[in-house]
Amino acid sequence: MQQSSLPKLSSAIERTPGSAIRAIYAEASTIPGCIRLEAGQPNFPTPAHVCAAAERAIEEGWHGYTAMQGLPSLRERLAGKLARVNGIQTDTDRVIVGNGGAGVVGAAIFCICDQGDEVLVPDPHWPNYRTMVALAHGQEVFYDCPAELGYQPDLNRLESLITPRTRVLVVNSPNNPTGAVYGPEVLRAMADIAARHGLWIVSDECYDQIVLEGTAVAPTMAGHADPERTLNVFTFSKSYAMTGWRVGYGTGPQRLIQAMAKAVEATTSCVSTVGQKAAEAALDGPQECIGEMVSAYRRRRDLVADLLRESELLRAVPAGAFYAMIDIAPSGMDSRSFCMRLLREAKVAVAPGGGFGAGGEGAVRVSLASSDEDLVEGVGRLAELVATAR
Amino acid sequence: MQQSSLPKLSSAIERTPGSAIRAIYAEASTIPGCIRLEAGQPNFPTPAHVCAAAERAIEEGWHGYTAMQGLPSLRERLAGKLARVNGIQTDTDRVIVGNGGAGVVGAAIFCICDQGDEVLVPDPHWPNYRTMVALAHGQEVFYDCPAELGYQPDLNRLESLITPRTRVLVVNSPNNPTGAVYGPEVLRAMADIAARHGLWIVSDECYDQIVLEGTAVAPTMAGHADPERTLNVFTFSKSYAMTGWRVGYGTGPQRLIQAMAKAVEATTSCVSTVGQKAAEAALDGPQECIGEMVSAYRRRRDLVADLLRESELLRAVPAGAFYAMIDIAPSGMDSRSFCMRLLREAKVAVAPGGGFGAGGEGAVRVSLASSDEDLVEGVGRLAELVATAR
Repeated sequence: MQQSSLPKLSSAIERTPGSAIRAIYAEASTIPGCIRLEAGQPNFPTPAHVCAAAERAIEEGWHGYTAMQGLPSLRERLAGKLARVNGIQTDTDRVIVGNGGAGVVGAAIFCICDQGDEVLVPDPHWPNYRTMVALAHGQEVFYDCPAELGYQPDLNRLESLITPRTRVLVVNSPNNPTGAVYGPEVLRAMADIAARHGLWIVSDECYDQIVLEGTAVAPTMAGHADPERTLNVFTFSKSYAMTGWRVGYGTGPQRLIQAMAKAVEATTSCVSTVGQKAAEAALDGPQECIGEMVSAYRRRRDLVADLLRESELLRAVPAGAFYAMIDIAPSGMDSRSFCMRLLREAKVAVAPGGGFGAGGEGAVRVSLASSDEDLVEGVGRLAELVATAR
Repeated sequence: MQQSSLPKLSSAIERTPGSAIRAIYAEASTIPGCIRLEAGQPNFPTPAHVCAAAERAIEEGWHGYTAMQGLPSLRERLAGKLARVNGIQTDTDRVIVGNGGAGVVGAAIFCICDQGDEVLVPDPHWPNYRTMVALAHGQEVFYDCPAELGYQPDLNRLESLITPRTRVLVVNSPNNPTGAVYGPEVLRAMADIAARHGLWIVSDECYDQIVLEGTAVAPTMAGHADPERTLNVFTFSKSYAMTGWRVGYGTGPQRLIQAMAKAVEATTSCVSTVGQKAAEAALDGPQECIGEMVSAYRRRRDLVADLLRESELLRAVPAGAFYAMIDIAPSGMDSRSFCMRLLREAKVAVAPGGGFGAGGEGAVRVSLASSDEDLVEGVGRLAELVATAR
């Protein structure tokens, strides 16, 4: 058999770095007794009534495909939740269910980007945005949300980055990894920028109900932005401790939702039917579980803030989500080296800030979705390494 | 607020047609008493022991994310299945779990295609290939698998379509929608073509165990192709009647699998954890369920062949998968018009062949994953419409 050279991978995937968190996760998994503060998922089980409903759905024979946009019965409930909780008026035709928040954001990016289109992504940022934009052959352009501004977006700088190729403004509040929550005036200013420049807004509000300060629900972009250019994205993963069930959802203008349904059909066919039935139960059932988890995150946030008050290593007190960015710059190490040393010498796993973009460098992300004991012990060892390496 | 024009969708998604099957599906859902032969999923429930295992997994707390490549315990079992059933030697590092077969094929296309790269897709074809290639900004190029050749690929024509921009050869045997199964000599010839021209092979073998003639398992591309350029894709959806659980898998060279893991992480995070545990149970448990379902598909295939023997409307006797392509050319109608008329006048839903590409035009696809009674009645009405419209 005649052989030619082996075929290449796409340039997009070649230039996409592997996940820095996954590298820590993989090594941490091999260290017995390691304190795990690197993960991005609740340390709570899925509520029992949701599990019971999922088992019932299995017994009732919910084993087949659903409509590609998601079960109509789930989308009705989602429209209800969006109105009740977020104050967003929508209908089932403008709601889509996806494989977690990631599946919804990804489908939108794929449906919007032509080759070379620019996507404004916050820095620091959830690294998956970057990979999605690369896979869609778009070009990521980072806008600063610096620690000095409490990780709020630098709006003047943001607008100066816009070019004729800019197509999408990705907004993420409450923010992963920084815990920043943008107020209505910031959201309105971002909405105005998008409208002035003819941009789509992909507003990732996956932590909408994980709010540690003020009201129980984060302000939504939907209250400020033109609904014809805005996709709002949510998930069951965080609010209901349902990461492994893989159910997210979004609402936006019908032409975008219809396009996304084509993309979702082609790339995933639909979302796990049992997961969708579990999601229905989460919406139908008691909502106290959310408040109980949020109380725990808030208590742990306060614990960490207290621990780091004297050393001033907490870069900004997180107001939402369940993460804290801790300053490690005084150690003189870059964040990846620091994390590896912390892992190997002190058996504590945290996520290197540099993995969330240049804006995260000099810090590490600690997850508040960990036990109080692990947090106190882990953050203590972390602070000690910063102090001794100084 | 200053307003500019509304932003566009990507040209790729704009030029992607909506699913012709979905249009039939949507209308059929509104017609009481309609006979449904358009669907692409088994009319069997998921085996009871698989359901029981999924419920156990929920109770045991399998609620969180898994490794992005899939649970190691599932990948070990998959490596075992690939060796035992398909004769493919691989290891857990070279196996990836995806959101159905669609999720695995999609991730591969995204990781391979640069803008304008050409992907060879069979015609007729599962329409999702086309959407995936569009979303990846690739260019689909169809190779004929004509009814006159029993829906086998026209190999000379295939090779003549290759240009310097060709990057991927998509192979789908057993084939959806035609039911064609390619023999070892055809697979070897296709493998040789790919090797001569430096192409990737994405071999969609999702119907590997749904074989209606000869051996119980379809010949695999892996027996013939260079493993360094070949991805083999499988699913639990068809063999175990698990469409709604969304678990597929693939095996290929490590550099491709690692790239795909990055893509899967970004766009879906992971596959439903409960689904993965259910898949483990499917592999661990009794395998008789597969044979029982295949026997039913075979019986129904024979029923349809008998019904259409006299009219000679069966274009080729399907040797695998659970579909039959039925000639409607004598009606003088195009396949979409025929399907709509059949649906409205005779209350029978079938899939228009044109929805599977130009090569499917003049035919409709009937699913054998339907009850014997529905098949006999539905195909009878179909044949009558062909005869009376003639």
